Amino acid sequence: MAGSNSVRYQFIGVIHSPFTDQKDTPIQSIFSNAQGMVEVFPPFVKGLDGLSEFSHLYLIYHFHKATPGRLEETPFLDGEKPRGIFCIRHYNRPNPIGISIVELEKVEGNCLFVKGVDVLDGTPLLDIKPYVVRFDNRENARSGWVDKKPIKNIQDMEATPGRLLDRTRDP
Amino acid sequence: MAGSNSVRYQFIGVIHSPFTDQKDTPIQSIFSNAQGMVEVFPPFVKGLDGLSEFSHLYLIYHFHKATPGRLEETPFLDGEKPRGIFCIRHYNRPNPIGISIVELEKVEGNCLFVKGVDVLDGTPLLDIKPYVVRFDNRENARSGWVDKKPIKNIQDMEATPGRLLDRTRDP
Repeated sequence: MAGSNSVRYQFIGVIHSPFTDQKDTPIQSIFSNAQGMVEVFPPFVKGLDGLSEFSHLYLIYHFHKATPGRLEETPFLDGEKPRGIFCIRHYNRPNPIGISIVELEKVEGNCLFVKGVDVLDGTPLLDIKPYVVRFDNRENARSGWVDKKPIKNIQDMEATPGRLLDRTRDP
Repeated sequence: MAGSNSVRYQFIGVIHSPFTDQKDTPIQSIFSNAQGMVEVFPPFVKGLDGLSEFSHLYLIYHFHKATPGRLEETPFLDGEKPRGIFCIRHYNRPNPIGISIVELEKVEGNCLFVKGVDVLDGTPLLDIKPYVVRFDNRENARSGWVDKKPIKNIQDMEATPGRLLDRTRDP
């Protein structure tokens, strides 16, 4: 590491979504039908060549409204008790980096139209990677406290933010 | 974004692996059996509480040996032709952020013993997130040029770096 203990990343774009308030934002992209638009800044557009062949993408972004540095938080899905920050997906992390898997509907120039958005409008984008089933699926993973939540329970918890899911997108 | 166009993240730990040369490092964690050790720096250890309940983790890290900023690269899995950097997982990205899904074998204090490591020894760690099957599997995803590679072909391409996979870990 040659003495360095941090790194600076530039924002390469911005994610437009229907969500302007954290309390209305879906917790996980897999339970969100919300549409969004990823605007990639002009210097990086060449990097999108060929992207439309992929149906799903990882978006990697900066949680710009987080309070970074918490070591434990109470998960949104649970609310039972605080848990170590590295066991949950809460945004108040030491480095508030988020990842979401979204569905790519179409690419138009520097704009990616995506579905399954679970981030605030205006979220700064750091990276895009293709989602590859053969690399990224782990069907037998054991997921601690999350496994104990019935799937219906998780979906019910999405029902509240879900009232926004049909709102007309207004990027 | 209030005028800011970049963000600084601190390194929260370091990933120890058997790989000291990029050309010998596995391309994807799913094809790697290599063991590694994730050392979490003391100020962040409290964030690990409860992590041992999870079998798989996302490691999010900085590709410290990358040449950042490329907009196209020739993928290691392919070599046919350069492709847009956001369609491939190459490390020479505008922001050289990497993600790997690894298997958690045990937690001892500030050390996570993991399997499926595909990064260079000394890689700086940015974040750890739990992998959750119900959030992170997308079984019907279409993966462009990667789908056209037979799975055996992908595994054969791992055979070369694979010669290192049984090497004794020497963190």
